[in-house]
Amino acid sequence: MSDSVNALPEHLAVRPDGPDSPGSVGWTRPLRVRLADEGRPLPLECGVSLAPVDVEYETYGTLSPARDNAILITHALSGDAHAAGWCANWRADDRPWRAKRPGWWDAMIGPGKPFNTNRYFVICSNVLGSCYGTTGPSSIDPRTGKPYGMRFPVVTVEDWVRLQERLVTHLGIDRLVTVCGGSLGGQQAIEWALAYPDRVRSVMVLAATPHLMAQGVAFNYAARNAVVSDPNFRGGDYYDAEEGPDRGLAVARMIGHITYLSDTSMTSKFGRRLREKDAPGFQIDVEYEVESYLRHQGAAFVERFDGNSYLYITRAMDYYDAAEHGDGDLTRAMAKARCAWMIVSFSSDWLYPPSGSMAIAAALAQNRRLVTYANLASQYGHDAFLLETERLSRLVTGFLANLNGGAT
Amino acid sequence: MSDSVNALPEHLAVRPDGPDSPGSVGWTRPLRVRLADEGRPLPLECGVSLAPVDVEYETYGTLSPARDNAILITHALSGDAHAAGWCANWRADDRPWRAKRPGWWDAMIGPGKPFNTNRYFVICSNVLGSCYGTTGPSSIDPRTGKPYGMRFPVVTVEDWVRLQERLVTHLGIDRLVTVCGGSLGGQQAIEWALAYPDRVRSVMVLAATPHLMAQGVAFNYAARNAVVSDPNFRGGDYYDAEEGPDRGLAVARMIGHITYLSDTSMTSKFGRRLREKDAPGFQIDVEYEVESYLRHQGAAFVERFDGNSYLYITRAMDYYDAAEHGDGDLTRAMAKARCAWMIVSFSSDWLYPPSGSMAIAAALAQNRRLVTYANLASQYGHDAFLLETERLSRLVTGFLANLNGGAT
Repeated sequence: MSDSVNALPEHLAVRPDGPDSPGSVGWTRPLRVRLADEGRPLPLECGVSLAPVDVEYETYGTLSPARDNAILITHALSGDAHAAGWCANWRADDRPWRAKRPGWWDAMIGPGKPFNTNRYFVICSNVLGSCYGTTGPSSIDPRTGKPYGMRFPVVTVEDWVRLQERLVTHLGIDRLVTVCGGSLGGQQAIEWALAYPDRVRSVMVLAATPHLMAQGVAFNYAARNAVVSDPNFRGGDYYDAEEGPDRGLAVARMIGHITYLSDTSMTSKFGRRLREKDAPGFQIDVEYEVESYLRHQGAAFVERFDGNSYLYITRAMDYYDAAEHGDGDLTRAMAKARCAWMIVSFSSDWLYPPSGSMAIAAALAQNRRLVTYANLASQYGHDAFLLETERLSRLVTGFLANLNGGAT
Repeated sequence: MSDSVNALPEHLAVRPDGPDSPGSVGWTRPLRVRLADEGRPLPLECGVSLAPVDVEYETYGTLSPARDNAILITHALSGDAHAAGWCANWRADDRPWRAKRPGWWDAMIGPGKPFNTNRYFVICSNVLGSCYGTTGPSSIDPRTGKPYGMRFPVVTVEDWVRLQERLVTHLGIDRLVTVCGGSLGGQQAIEWALAYPDRVRSVMVLAATPHLMAQGVAFNYAARNAVVSDPNFRGGDYYDAEEGPDRGLAVARMIGHITYLSDTSMTSKFGRRLREKDAPGFQIDVEYEVESYLRHQGAAFVERFDGNSYLYITRAMDYYDAAEHGDGDLTRAMAKARCAWMIVSFSSDWLYPPSGSMAIAAALAQNRRLVTYANLASQYGHDAFLLETERLSRLVTGFLANLNGGAT
């Protein structure tokens, strides 16, 4: 079987969102660019200047001659640059799970989709500290010739956005049509509006709040503790070892997953149903469907994510607070923004609850900024930003049309 | 310094709830009794007949000649039989933390307190499977001469109550004035009313629901996973080892603790405050007060609890479902009850949410049973049943008075 598009692998040919479907961006290849080196290191919020910094990114659609049709999509905790379409080198790629499914936001990006690649040039880049191609703890530290591990500097949402600005500049784009992301991706969108107010015409902030609540910080701490408590963590230097902190990372992912769902969605999906039986087996091991689900989520995550990256990215999640742009005052912070905003929260999201999204909208309104806010009734919890694509599509399409004076 | 009451240790003498305070039951000593042996093993729900079974319990006050003034207090996940007063052998006891604080519900039990030991004979016993004196995974398995570990049979709330019934019978008590407990203790109270309807005049169910929600089952699974993933767990056979699954158990406790609080109480207690500094240190290690709190809770728990017991007791928590008394129908289940009920929930409790408590009250009302239901507005989350003692006191006092025809 050849690797050409003509010989579409059978498992993809039958998928309605397969690479040859009319709405798909088709086959994609990750791009990589060095955006910081010795001569021009990346200054980080923690005081360190980092170099080299490589960034993995993907683009879909074509940049217009006027370079005025670019959209930046920002990803969440465990996301990557592969937001749409199908990984062309899925046979050879070191991330084999990409063969099984399209990019993480394929439902939203493509020809005729809300982020219409017939019209827009869509960019998605992997964040600093991740394990998906952009420099992170698993990258080689030039000072030692070995992976950074925990010697990687602590990075923040502000640092991510500073690096994204370099990418956008590198691509010759002066002003983005919009920056759109959910969760931690939504916080990057907020940061774009406040740090680079003249470089964005709009931002779309989904399922994100000015900062993580105390409870979220607590969950992240427990999750990180599971990772660093795993003896295979070895202080972060496990890359040459036979096994990394897999068991700890699986527990961390389980904790995370519970916070991404709602009790309502868990109840309707699993309830208290036992797995493949009617009566309890009176055992400590997996009995309930919800346990089986979590076990699977933990095991699958370990296959595709790096423990150190989990530590660094959740820490960035803890640190972010949009109000810092106003010395702790959110209204004063939002005065920095110039662009149009779309803010969407989801009623059952308890990790980034609607009250936080509403606080941003209120702070913007107090500054007489252009803001569209919608709280969608959904039972899917925080994950709704990935699942409620139909309603999100209408909102995104409408917002972009308005931005263009009503033209779609 | 002698061990006599006259020479009160200084740290206790200054406490307003010290052993010589008028409201304290004073010094207490744990009692122990064998309630199942070869000739009369304890039948468990899982099918196993267990023997021997020893039970650790404490009593406060005096049993009346008519034996009609006994109250059973049931404890929650990490509780023990030491519900009130001060452990007399605190210097020698293998549970040294008992020297630092009175029994876990000291605020509610004592002379003149809601569970007035001048009037009532109050009993509290440790549950089967625990590590506080009652037979559990750390007890010696007579078949092997070694601790049971994971060979201990899976126990349920039903089994706990069956054992408590033996204790009550052993004490010569035919009918209890009330069975009162919170959380998993509340589920034991429910079980008493349904399994032994003629042995209780009333039950008080605090912060408890007919069953744990899917989300709670999920949290327990993640927590247990942290324990069994710890290499020091050794399949449960760690009693002779230098170290048990301490790191995993600490993570489990952190997860648990988050579910016992509410985001509101976490926010008002810790918010996003950094620990002992004004600016972030840009580190993965503890930065926030809430992290420091969780670290402490994890470390303290490991000092006083057994990993295997954590597995067994959380599993009992998963399994319980009061509706099983009605083949899955809660209303039909509640028809079994004969006694008077007091049900109290707490508005911010999301582990055993008010909706579940209300469902019990509604099911009882449909059966025309006597039920008092109160949903107390509280920000303390599930922990409220231990913290809202002032308002609980009024409810308990009033309910007991009504039970006695208005006499207090």
